[in-house]
Amino acid sequence: VPLTSVSIDEQITYLKKGLADLIREEDLRERLIQAEKTGRPLRVKAGFDPTAPDLHLGHTVLLRKMKHFQDLGHRVIFLIGDNTGLIGDPSGRNTTRPPMTREEIDKNAETYKAQVFKILDPEKTEVRFNSEWLEPMRFADIIRLCSKYTVARVMERDDFTKRFKDGTPIFIHELLYPLAQGYDSVMLECDVEMGGTDQRFNLLVGRELQRDSGQPPQIVATVPLLEGTDGVEKMSKSKGNYIGITEPPKVIFRKVMGISDTLMWRYWELLTDKSLAEIAAMKAEEPMEVKMRLARQIVSDFHSSAAADQAQLDFQHEVREGAAPTDMETVRLPGDIGNSLPKILVVAGLADSRTDAERKIKAGAVEIDGNRHIGLMVAISANGAVFRVGKKWKRIEPQA
Amino acid sequence: VPLTSVSIDEQITYLKKGLADLIREEDLRERLIQAEKTGRPLRVKAGFDPTAPDLHLGHTVLLRKMKHFQDLGHRVIFLIGDNTGLIGDPSGRNTTRPPMTREEIDKNAETYKAQVFKILDPEKTEVRFNSEWLEPMRFADIIRLCSKYTVARVMERDDFTKRFKDGTPIFIHELLYPLAQGYDSVMLECDVEMGGTDQRFNLLVGRELQRDSGQPPQIVATVPLLEGTDGVEKMSKSKGNYIGITEPPKVIFRKVMGISDTLMWRYWELLTDKSLAEIAAMKAEEPMEVKMRLARQIVSDFHSSAAADQAQLDFQHEVREGAAPTDMETVRLPGDIGNSLPKILVVAGLADSRTDAERKIKAGAVEIDGNRHIGLMVAISANGAVFRVGKKWKRIEPQA
Repeated sequence: VPLTSVSIDEQITYLKKGLADLIREEDLRERLIQAEKTGRPLRVKAGFDPTAPDLHLGHTVLLRKMKHFQDLGHRVIFLIGDNTGLIGDPSGRNTTRPPMTREEIDKNAETYKAQVFKILDPEKTEVRFNSEWLEPMRFADIIRLCSKYTVARVMERDDFTKRFKDGTPIFIHELLYPLAQGYDSVMLECDVEMGGTDQRFNLLVGRELQRDSGQPPQIVATVPLLEGTDGVEKMSKSKGNYIGITEPPKVIFRKVMGISDTLMWRYWELLTDKSLAEIAAMKAEEPMEVKMRLARQIVSDFHSSAAADQAQLDFQHEVREGAAPTDMETVRLPGDIGNSLPKILVVAGLADSRTDAERKIKAGAVEIDGNRHIGLMVAISANGAVFRVGKKWKRIEPQA
Repeated sequence: VPLTSVSIDEQITYLKKGLADLIREEDLRERLIQAEKTGRPLRVKAGFDPTAPDLHLGHTVLLRKMKHFQDLGHRVIFLIGDNTGLIGDPSGRNTTRPPMTREEIDKNAETYKAQVFKILDPEKTEVRFNSEWLEPMRFADIIRLCSKYTVARVMERDDFTKRFKDGTPIFIHELLYPLAQGYDSVMLECDVEMGGTDQRFNLLVGRELQRDSGQPPQIVATVPLLEGTDGVEKMSKSKGNYIGITEPPKVIFRKVMGISDTLMWRYWELLTDKSLAEIAAMKAEEPMEVKMRLARQIVSDFHSSAAADQAQLDFQHEVREGAAPTDMETVRLPGDIGNSLPKILVVAGLADSRTDAERKIKAGAVEIDGNRHIGLMVAISANGAVFRVGKKWKRIEPQA
């Protein structure tokens, strides 16, 4: 979409979709008008941590909003905060966060690019490193930067307020990070800075430092933190509720199909370009169908539509094949049968003979409670277990 | 006094005299013993502001205590905080504090030296500039330094606590200064740091940063802030209650003679090498005599004993000439005399005629309450006034 083909109101609607905060809409409107008039695209920044280039869908909420600016002809700055990465844990107390080398940072930057350019348009993206301007700073420069901001104001940040109240130590260097981030905006002459809602305070600092430097203050746009597949906690690798964008198509497809219907609508809003009106219209359809389309869409974004087709086929096949019949026969084992799996299979009618049973086990054809079983011994719990051998299903229960 | 000729107890007594704080005496004792054993002199630092090289007696309290360490064979580091001087007012809000140039700082350093070497032994003094280690610091180094200290601890500093409570802004760079000062001690491997009582907190930060760097924490020794000639406020140029060490001998002598007897004992303690026992013994003498000796001593310190002799002679001459007689005649003026000074002089018998009175006024021979009066009109307050014309003195009182 070229800069001028869409009305300003439509542009605003497009950019606002899914945002948590927009400070301020009037300023954004004015700057979009200005951009249209002068043909100068807006400069839209977001900062990324150099240590974590393994992206999941949670990260793509932000990237997708950045891409929306690109859709309207603007320029995105993908800023890698390498200077802080080079420091590691500055106190040296945390040995699990050693300083990164220049090589590691560059390698991570390449990994980032390979991933983010699945969403962002490389032609309209600048990849920058903040060491470019932070590294040459001297004591005097940092003093000057710090003199622009008061302790009281930094302490207003939600987490600082809480920690100060609780008596949890806040180290002085932590106050410097928001200032450094704001200084990045000054150096990059940003029109817009984006981030998660947890970045709101830091983004606002940028506005003030820009004002102080005689620049118009940047527009601040935050995106909500995406819930993970459990629909409860924020998506995060460590919580295991994530969908990684480099995961295989089949895995992504299955994970999307596993989310709740409620969460699905949120994913439509935050993870696709569909307008709110289009999403509202889909609510009349069969949810499973709509969720399948979402899963296809997400796989297409990070792999291809062919991969999405295949992932859907695989999923449907598995579902058709893999679903346990509702009318399954229950077999109660005799008390003296012991733990021999071949014996159990014969007794349950799942194999013709011990030899047949052993062959089937060896071939991987025996599943117990959904897991392939390859050993010759098995312990059946008091609750019993679901056995599947080929297309035959039995519920097996031990002698009471 | 060489390092070893005095017992440790005597050394401690000598060094402790006049101190406000000593943290901690046991550590000082141990380090003095160590110095004696190894022959390695202690390193005793004090920091000075590069902007104010015009010293008054208030500054010499500290310099004199530093000299006491030199008397016992130790090494003094006269540290000029030039890095902050090069910054000026970092916020740029205060145009009266522009950044200093390297040349100005070097010139001030020379002025400092010319003055402080009247007290300190140049052979046992290092003059250092903290830009030596602060200037090469990078963003990463400063982050690392700041990570050694928490916001809560810096905010414990008396003036910060007060300002935070009052809502008076504290700018973030102000938190960096105590850390930089403590870092100076690490870089200089100080055994002792000295300063005014207002520096206590900053000096204690040095102890912690040294401990963190694997150095034994410095001993902190603070000196009280010297009261000015009024005996009430801290000596300061702006309050006009100071005695500058470069003032002429006569001026210094007269200013010392003008202080109260109470303040005199404090000056003996803080501005001379006399022991507390010697000072106690002097309390039996005539105070005016003792004060005269103090004035001679101080002039000798900053000029010479010949200059002190002359200043004393000048002072005594002035006093003999200038002192009002105790048996002065009182004249009560007639009610209708008005404000004409010539008329008053004639009535009081201080002039032969109106013409004689006008001539005397014009010649500057008329003093009222110690001030020369050259106008022809005068208002006498209800309390009256002391008139002096040549060697004639009269107390003049208005009609009741």
